[in-house]
Amino acid sequence: MSWTLGPDDIAGLARGAAVLGTGGGGDPYIGSLLARQALNQHGPVTVVDLDDVPDDALVLTVAMMGAPTVMVEKLPSLDEVVAPVLALGASLGRPVTHIACAEVGGVNSTIPVAAAAALGLPLIDGDGMGRAFPELQMVLPTLYDVTASPLAFSDEKGNVGVLNTVDNHWTERIARVACVEMGCSIMIAGFPMDGATARAALVGGTLRHSVEIGVGIEEARTSKTDPVARTVGVLGGRELFAGKVADVERATTTGFARGRARVDGTGSSLELSFQNEHLIARIDGTVVVTTPDLIIVLDHESGEPITTEGLRYGQRVRVIAAPSDPRWHGAAALAMVGPGYFGYDVDAHRFDGTVSTGAEAAA
Amino acid sequence: MSWTLGPDDIAGLARGAAVLGTGGGGDPYIGSLLARQALNQHGPVTVVDLDDVPDDALVLTVAMMGAPTVMVEKLPSLDEVVAPVLALGASLGRPVTHIACAEVGGVNSTIPVAAAAALGLPLIDGDGMGRAFPELQMVLPTLYDVTASPLAFSDEKGNVGVLNTVDNHWTERIARVACVEMGCSIMIAGFPMDGATARAALVGGTLRHSVEIGVGIEEARTSKTDPVARTVGVLGGRELFAGKVADVERATTTGFARGRARVDGTGSSLELSFQNEHLIARIDGTVVVTTPDLIIVLDHESGEPITTEGLRYGQRVRVIAAPSDPRWHGAAALAMVGPGYFGYDVDAHRFDGTVSTGAEAAA
Repeated sequence: MSWTLGPDDIAGLARGAAVLGTGGGGDPYIGSLLARQALNQHGPVTVVDLDDVPDDALVLTVAMMGAPTVMVEKLPSLDEVVAPVLALGASLGRPVTHIACAEVGGVNSTIPVAAAAALGLPLIDGDGMGRAFPELQMVLPTLYDVTASPLAFSDEKGNVGVLNTVDNHWTERIARVACVEMGCSIMIAGFPMDGATARAALVGGTLRHSVEIGVGIEEARTSKTDPVARTVGVLGGRELFAGKVADVERATTTGFARGRARVDGTGSSLELSFQNEHLIARIDGTVVVTTPDLIIVLDHESGEPITTEGLRYGQRVRVIAAPSDPRWHGAAALAMVGPGYFGYDVDAHRFDGTVSTGAEAAA
Repeated sequence: MSWTLGPDDIAGLARGAAVLGTGGGGDPYIGSLLARQALNQHGPVTVVDLDDVPDDALVLTVAMMGAPTVMVEKLPSLDEVVAPVLALGASLGRPVTHIACAEVGGVNSTIPVAAAAALGLPLIDGDGMGRAFPELQMVLPTLYDVTASPLAFSDEKGNVGVLNTVDNHWTERIARVACVEMGCSIMIAGFPMDGATARAALVGGTLRHSVEIGVGIEEARTSKTDPVARTVGVLGGRELFAGKVADVERATTTGFARGRARVDGTGSSLELSFQNEHLIARIDGTVVVTTPDLIIVLDHESGEPITTEGLRYGQRVRVIAAPSDPRWHGAAALAMVGPGYFGYDVDAHRFDGTVSTGAEAAA
């Protein structure tokens, strides 16, 4: 099945994607601007269900790489978004047939819309994570032996590069230093795969799911019901904490926005650790939820998602948790995106507070 | 005219090229190992005169980029040398017909020999500088509007990248950070140009000239004459100073081997400033010769060239100066490679001590 995504869908998509982006994946406002511009200029995009992607498709994921804090001041252009897809298609020697999202996020769910519109290509309803993560190899396709490489990158000045690396860590390392040198925000296209692989490796339905979440928040506000409760329901998650942002520490280092935030509630505090995305939530020093499950910060009243770079002292927020794609709880997946990888010596805790053992059926 | 370069020519070529490399361009021993291996495995290389390169040729320059200090411990392989040529040919969509040297140096005159042998391609007798310089845009082709980009790079692990940039400074910046991340030494192929452009932009005859210098040093030693005087004669230069290395300061930072060395003579001292290559020579605080002319350190007795990373306390050395290709003294060329570019607030001084005004006929 396929559906048509037009300019009017972008607000809901960007908002819902920013929820699933768990604080990362970029600012939904900036992503929306670019996607709407592309849709107005080139017409709507056909979104195809993951199950309907043909075996012989050539699928690429398109994303922004870098520190979202920088992108706020360095708006990408349509040329910049299209360039890596064209460069990678030329390098592979055959035409790209489908665009997919690498992750879900305010920017990284809308940049691919802009790419698909400008290139006249269908967009797959799905992505590589079902959420956002900070490093490019952190996608489920990695667990299916799909490599990021060949990977193309571009900047707003017109510089383009194509990498063919020996593994995803080298792609990440080389692309990351190029990204930093090029101004901490670049567009990338990579993870080339055929349709059969895409169907197995991607997380399906995440565009539709994002729109459902984003529109739901809007509807709840209109009907004077609680948008946060609505989102918790759609996600099948739970509310962790409500309070006021009392402290935010942030540093943009080696291309990432890293930091910590403290939310003070009634007689109790929640601490968030993030690296682009929220990775650990502790209440009064005790770990309650960790990556790979979703930790999401929403505005107390409006239910609007707040990105890690948008966190400010004094904001009244509610913090919710939700399950990730179950494949993220396999042992190999936890080694790639669990707390230990990010340098935290804590067990992976699921959204419901239980410890994840890595016994989940692996991808 | 063309001639054949075999394993027996390598010692002379590498030694002579290390003289013209003015302290940079890499260790001649390491370059020799790789070139001899390639020639023994694939047969001799045909060297063609620059004047005989046909108009429709596709010429690429091949070089090692990085800190020569690192290359001593990280030997490149033939695969690594061939990879960027193949990647760039594929990216350009037509076969490469000729290999050229980007610069003259112990490694960068022998790596292209290895590439030409392994690929079965002719090697042009010439290079982009007539000496060595530390940054990749510092070649005469830049003054003829030849861009480094598209440029391909590779490392010993098998990682390959191709850059298409908006100018040579961006090629340098992105390739340099990739180089640092990949271990401070990578192979590059770039500056694609047709034969007519190569004939205009390259410095002709520098391979033959290197062999003449290198063989001359050996002959002088055999005939018990002074090899340093022999080299000064072949170069049309002059001897600046003789003494003992009294102090060497060195730091490998941002991918370069930077530093200073002091040579103490009788009642007088010479100070060398280098960044891979020797850039400034001062005697008792007075500038006597600077980039772009050649400042060369030779062993006092054997006349063997000493690279900047080979400088050691206590070495007895003689420092000589020689003219560079006259095009390096044009105003645009001096802006690119004169002392000011490297951060020294001094006039460019020619090998004979006169100040270079930038009035030389531009390229």
